[in-house]
Amino acid sequence: MESEFGLIGRYFSRPAPADMLGVGDDCALFSVKPGFQLATSTDLLIEGRHFLSDADPQALGHKALAVNLSDLAAMGASPLACLLGISLPVVDHKWLTAFSEGFYDLADKAGCPLVGGDTTRSNTGIVISVTVMGQVRAEQALRRSAAQIGDDVWVTGTLGAPDIALRMLQGRLPVDQVILAAAQPSLERPEPPLAFAAGLAGVANAALDISDGLLQDLGHILQSSHCGAQLQYPAMPVHPGLKGVDPAAIQAAVLAGGDVYQLCFTALPGRREAIQALASQTATQITRIGTIVQGSDAQVFNAQGALIQSGSAGFDHFS
Amino acid sequence: MESEFGLIGRYFSRPAPADMLGVGDDCALFSVKPGFQLATSTDLLIEGRHFLSDADPQALGHKALAVNLSDLAAMGASPLACLLGISLPVVDHKWLTAFSEGFYDLADKAGCPLVGGDTTRSNTGIVISVTVMGQVRAEQALRRSAAQIGDDVWVTGTLGAPDIALRMLQGRLPVDQVILAAAQPSLERPEPPLAFAAGLAGVANAALDISDGLLQDLGHILQSSHCGAQLQYPAMPVHPGLKGVDPAAIQAAVLAGGDVYQLCFTALPGRREAIQALASQTATQITRIGTIVQGSDAQVFNAQGALIQSGSAGFDHFS
Repeated sequence: MESEFGLIGRYFSRPAPADMLGVGDDCALFSVKPGFQLATSTDLLIEGRHFLSDADPQALGHKALAVNLSDLAAMGASPLACLLGISLPVVDHKWLTAFSEGFYDLADKAGCPLVGGDTTRSNTGIVISVTVMGQVRAEQALRRSAAQIGDDVWVTGTLGAPDIALRMLQGRLPVDQVILAAAQPSLERPEPPLAFAAGLAGVANAALDISDGLLQDLGHILQSSHCGAQLQYPAMPVHPGLKGVDPAAIQAAVLAGGDVYQLCFTALPGRREAIQALASQTATQITRIGTIVQGSDAQVFNAQGALIQSGSAGFDHFS
Repeated sequence: MESEFGLIGRYFSRPAPADMLGVGDDCALFSVKPGFQLATSTDLLIEGRHFLSDADPQALGHKALAVNLSDLAAMGASPLACLLGISLPVVDHKWLTAFSEGFYDLADKAGCPLVGGDTTRSNTGIVISVTVMGQVRAEQALRRSAAQIGDDVWVTGTLGAPDIALRMLQGRLPVDQVILAAAQPSLERPEPPLAFAAGLAGVANAALDISDGLLQDLGHILQSSHCGAQLQYPAMPVHPGLKGVDPAAIQAAVLAGGDVYQLCFTALPGRREAIQALASQTATQITRIGTIVQGSDAQVFNAQGALIQSGSAGFDHFS
């Protein structure tokens, strides 16, 4: 078997940019731009809990980084660098090659070099730990607590597809191969809207990603900002590939389905033009879905103006 | 069961310093001092591999952070903040309380606030992931590649105790309760020499911690710096509590025993006075154990000047 050092050297030590110290010393070293703060977040992914044992390792490498980059996007931060911890029951070179390719492909695309890591043997399943670091102007970070009454509520991308794909893969919805093929990429290869998010800092007020479902995640903004929201269901950007799925399942997926590595954000109505321009520049789909109001929960209305859901419901890691 | 959010809120959300954004948003936010670089490192600890299932949770909380702080020390960086990922098969409140106490006690002592994390359910054992972030002046970081021919080789603290304690606990050495009581704290509650290490930046040349054993870790410096080392075994600071242990076991523990969260560093002989003064100021035990020479490996000599060991040997995570 290879040493810890050897494993890192073989799969996870592509050179860091010249102005950084990457894999191979006790710590990685890099600079944060003057006037900017460091933004950082960490996530654990556990085999059998967050991914299946037979998950495509290349997609898994992509997703392990994507879910963390999504946290940077949700603060309006630009990626700087990332760290990877990986624990494996066996050294499977084919698996490691594919995993590292998926990871590096997204790291390259996102401008988020892998600068350090830890590999170790697991007695049981695969464990993946990713930490991302980015930078954002201190006063411009998109905090959950900064939503204001009267703000528009926006989302990037589309809603519903990851949850429908997961339900089909788990046998909880009948499989339709056409729909699954359309929906699965957003489950397995999410692409957080990083360029758009970095431009949103200083423009929007509050933001977060929809990893636990729209209503639950928006609920965190509402709780932190002490306000409510009124949302228009017909305005929501349902993934176009879901046509033919039971409308009740779609509604559940749109409002409560997790794993959506897109942003929900709030901004003053006076910012609509700037936001639309930013979306055009970064080729990002955005949709205005409601308004921040006085109150304490999110209320969802249908085309007839009838309340169809309120409160929050989403994915709970310990339920 | 509690939600992910509830678990973090209950055990891991003590307030961050006023100038930081801590647990509760998508990312933590904090500043790096102008002129300094960010130093960062991550480690995974796996139940059954890095700690036993019945490990004292308070000691485990301490050690999970200590092993990472040790990486900052080895760069000469001062702690800024840390992140914790923890995956648990069951929510054991007593365990979590003790673990978080051990973690926070060291975080407070080290000035390294916990600013973010991720808790999730594990299908199997406990998994702990810690990421530390610190700051160091870019040109003063203690890199492995910076040792120079003629440098003194120094170590902080004492050697041998963690390995002897581990061998006794694992039944690989006969248990002597007096010796075990003396040696066990350095295994379970290591205290990296952070204040000394921060002062060492700009004074020493190369440094690392001895987590994988003196000869193996020094070997990384020698390889990166393209040099060799001559070490005097009689000069080495053997832990005083090991008296009575078989000398061969002590020698193996001193030269190859891992889990020593102390520094091995190299510095010009002209820096001896500055280093001694720094050690006095920070109440840090330091010992000069040898010299960097031309060559490619470490050679260890006894009191008679005879070569007693060369090369490297240490703990291999995949052996």
